[in-house]
Amino acid sequence: MPSDLRFLILVEGQFGPLSSKTANSCIRYTPDRVVAVMDSRFSGKTAQDVLGFGGAIPVVGTLGDGLARKPTALLIGVAPQGGRLPNDWRATILGAIDAGLDVWSGLHTFLSHDAEFAARAAQRGVTLHDLRLPPADLPVAAGRVRDVDATVILTVGSDCNIGKMTAALQVREALAQRGRAVRFAGTGQTGILIEGWGIAVDAVIADFIAGAAERLVLEAAEGADIVLVEGQGSVIHPGYSGVTLGLLHGSLPHALVLCTQPSRTTITNNPWLTIPPLTDIIALHDALTKPLRPAPVIAVCLNTYDLPERAALDAIARARDETGLPATDPVRFDPEPIVHAIDAFHAERTRNISSRAAMIR
Amino acid sequence: MPSDLRFLILVEGQFGPLSSKTANSCIRYTPDRVVAVMDSRFSGKTAQDVLGFGGAIPVVGTLGDGLARKPTALLIGVAPQGGRLPNDWRATILGAIDAGLDVWSGLHTFLSHDAEFAARAAQRGVTLHDLRLPPADLPVAAGRVRDVDATVILTVGSDCNIGKMTAALQVREALAQRGRAVRFAGTGQTGILIEGWGIAVDAVIADFIAGAAERLVLEAAEGADIVLVEGQGSVIHPGYSGVTLGLLHGSLPHALVLCTQPSRTTITNNPWLTIPPLTDIIALHDALTKPLRPAPVIAVCLNTYDLPERAALDAIARARDETGLPATDPVRFDPEPIVHAIDAFHAERTRNISSRAAMIR
Repeated sequence: MPSDLRFLILVEGQFGPLSSKTANSCIRYTPDRVVAVMDSRFSGKTAQDVLGFGGAIPVVGTLGDGLARKPTALLIGVAPQGGRLPNDWRATILGAIDAGLDVWSGLHTFLSHDAEFAARAAQRGVTLHDLRLPPADLPVAAGRVRDVDATVILTVGSDCNIGKMTAALQVREALAQRGRAVRFAGTGQTGILIEGWGIAVDAVIADFIAGAAERLVLEAAEGADIVLVEGQGSVIHPGYSGVTLGLLHGSLPHALVLCTQPSRTTITNNPWLTIPPLTDIIALHDALTKPLRPAPVIAVCLNTYDLPERAALDAIARARDETGLPATDPVRFDPEPIVHAIDAFHAERTRNISSRAAMIR
Repeated sequence: MPSDLRFLILVEGQFGPLSSKTANSCIRYTPDRVVAVMDSRFSGKTAQDVLGFGGAIPVVGTLGDGLARKPTALLIGVAPQGGRLPNDWRATILGAIDAGLDVWSGLHTFLSHDAEFAARAAQRGVTLHDLRLPPADLPVAAGRVRDVDATVILTVGSDCNIGKMTAALQVREALAQRGRAVRFAGTGQTGILIEGWGIAVDAVIADFIAGAAERLVLEAAEGADIVLVEGQGSVIHPGYSGVTLGLLHGSLPHALVLCTQPSRTTITNNPWLTIPPLTDIIALHDALTKPLRPAPVIAVCLNTYDLPERAALDAIARARDETGLPATDPVRFDPEPIVHAIDAFHAERTRNISSRAAMIR
């Protein structure tokens, strides 16, 4: 990943707390890389005005205004359901290429496979980076991660787009401060963009989802005490549950952190589908991990951004009572309860391995 | 699908009851399309000698001997784990193309995307058929099949390659004889080959597994009383469970038929992974369907080909006692118990819908 990366982020018509996930995560975790965000509806405002975070990063209304901020690359700031390119963005992308910008994209439609984009980029000498382009020759998973020494933690969720990547990123720093060697394994376009490596498990051929997860964990575990694997979707999401289960059975985590949003009652884009109680979701994960390698849910991570503080604290207390597990919103409040749960689980697991080894000696 | 299709089936080094699934199903369900099978280890024998079925279909040892049987096409008769082409088969495939044969393949490696095969086929004027090539523009699934009137039955399994396609095909005829309009929805290369249409759900981009299943069921349900959906993998298979769950949540079946093999104790290619008791597998499926649309397991289908008759009958009786469900081996014995279970479930469901409609009137 080039160190002088300066993004103009394209989110025309879609900039918002829930609608521009790629842009928002880039703004939250790598703000130094963002020179401007483009959405004509909010021209003249700042990221802070629209998202409630992101400080003075300006929102611009035209490509020209964006180019005036001297970006080195255009980042496609959304990953819509199905991940295809909004048709009316083509002109902006071609304009950015003509202006000499590289283009980074997490869409399922690979820009580098688009004849017009590819030709124009070649002509102008810029690069098209497709974050979701999977590596060739992925294996079919077969439990190879069972030999890994590191403690593998996977974030799972009651729905998609609910904070699984954020949960992992928010606890990483605090775990490192406790002296743990922590690796984050990005499994989606945004996690890969932030981290500089990873595999988008939702973009591989279906037979290789778990194989991609397996390869990712094997790589992340090298020299790590704890691997935080970015979860995807939900085991009850009618569109994405296959990706979720493949990731669960390929990464074979030792423990899970369950992410949820108290204000959400039905699954994204599926108003017919009520989200079950947390205890049911936990029981379902227990049933799914038990035959392969049991992985308890050890903490609950709540996304309370849309609740007043009092209601948020109530929701956290309710989740704690309902599940008997540590719970918090690690963005809004102290991530400590989740950090401690992971750290204590790792310490206990390491102790057990050492004492078993001692008994064998 | 051309009506004068006459296959030479390539299974060099792999012809056998469990190792050449595509070939075997083609021999079982469309024997009139098979002129010869190529595996030099069994040259001079018949399919019957090697498989225990298939009658006088000859096994040949060389491409020349195969061509002497006047095939119109070469069929790649295996779909190995990962679905890639055995390297030493290239010469045979090129030889077949040069001899003017079309080539049919269910591999993940698309023959039509291979520069050498594509060039040679174009030169010779023959066609490369990739059964797993997915349609473009699949949707992300969102429960669209909930509006379908037909009764949707999905076969599921305790492992992959255990008889899920066979179970569906064995009961289809008997259901038709009872006056039901039945459609078989093929989800794998072999089912598609036999039926002439379908989508290989394991070959689509991961985010669209359920979307592929959804599209398939919507199409199969047109004018049908009962749709039999070919299952894939197993929800406990470490490599394929993602495909399995995507298919389950995309097709949203009304009921399931569970396929198992009594002699098998561990998951294919995963000797570390013990297959749980049938009742646990049923409970796991109940937990996975309940949040979206409950789908009871209504029958158990046993694959007893490798047991003596007495042991097979004992295993069937045990499965019946353990689960309280109708059970049989529909290939070896009368498929009636499974046929009746599906037919009775459909009748009951239709009655309930009618009486609810009458109450509203």
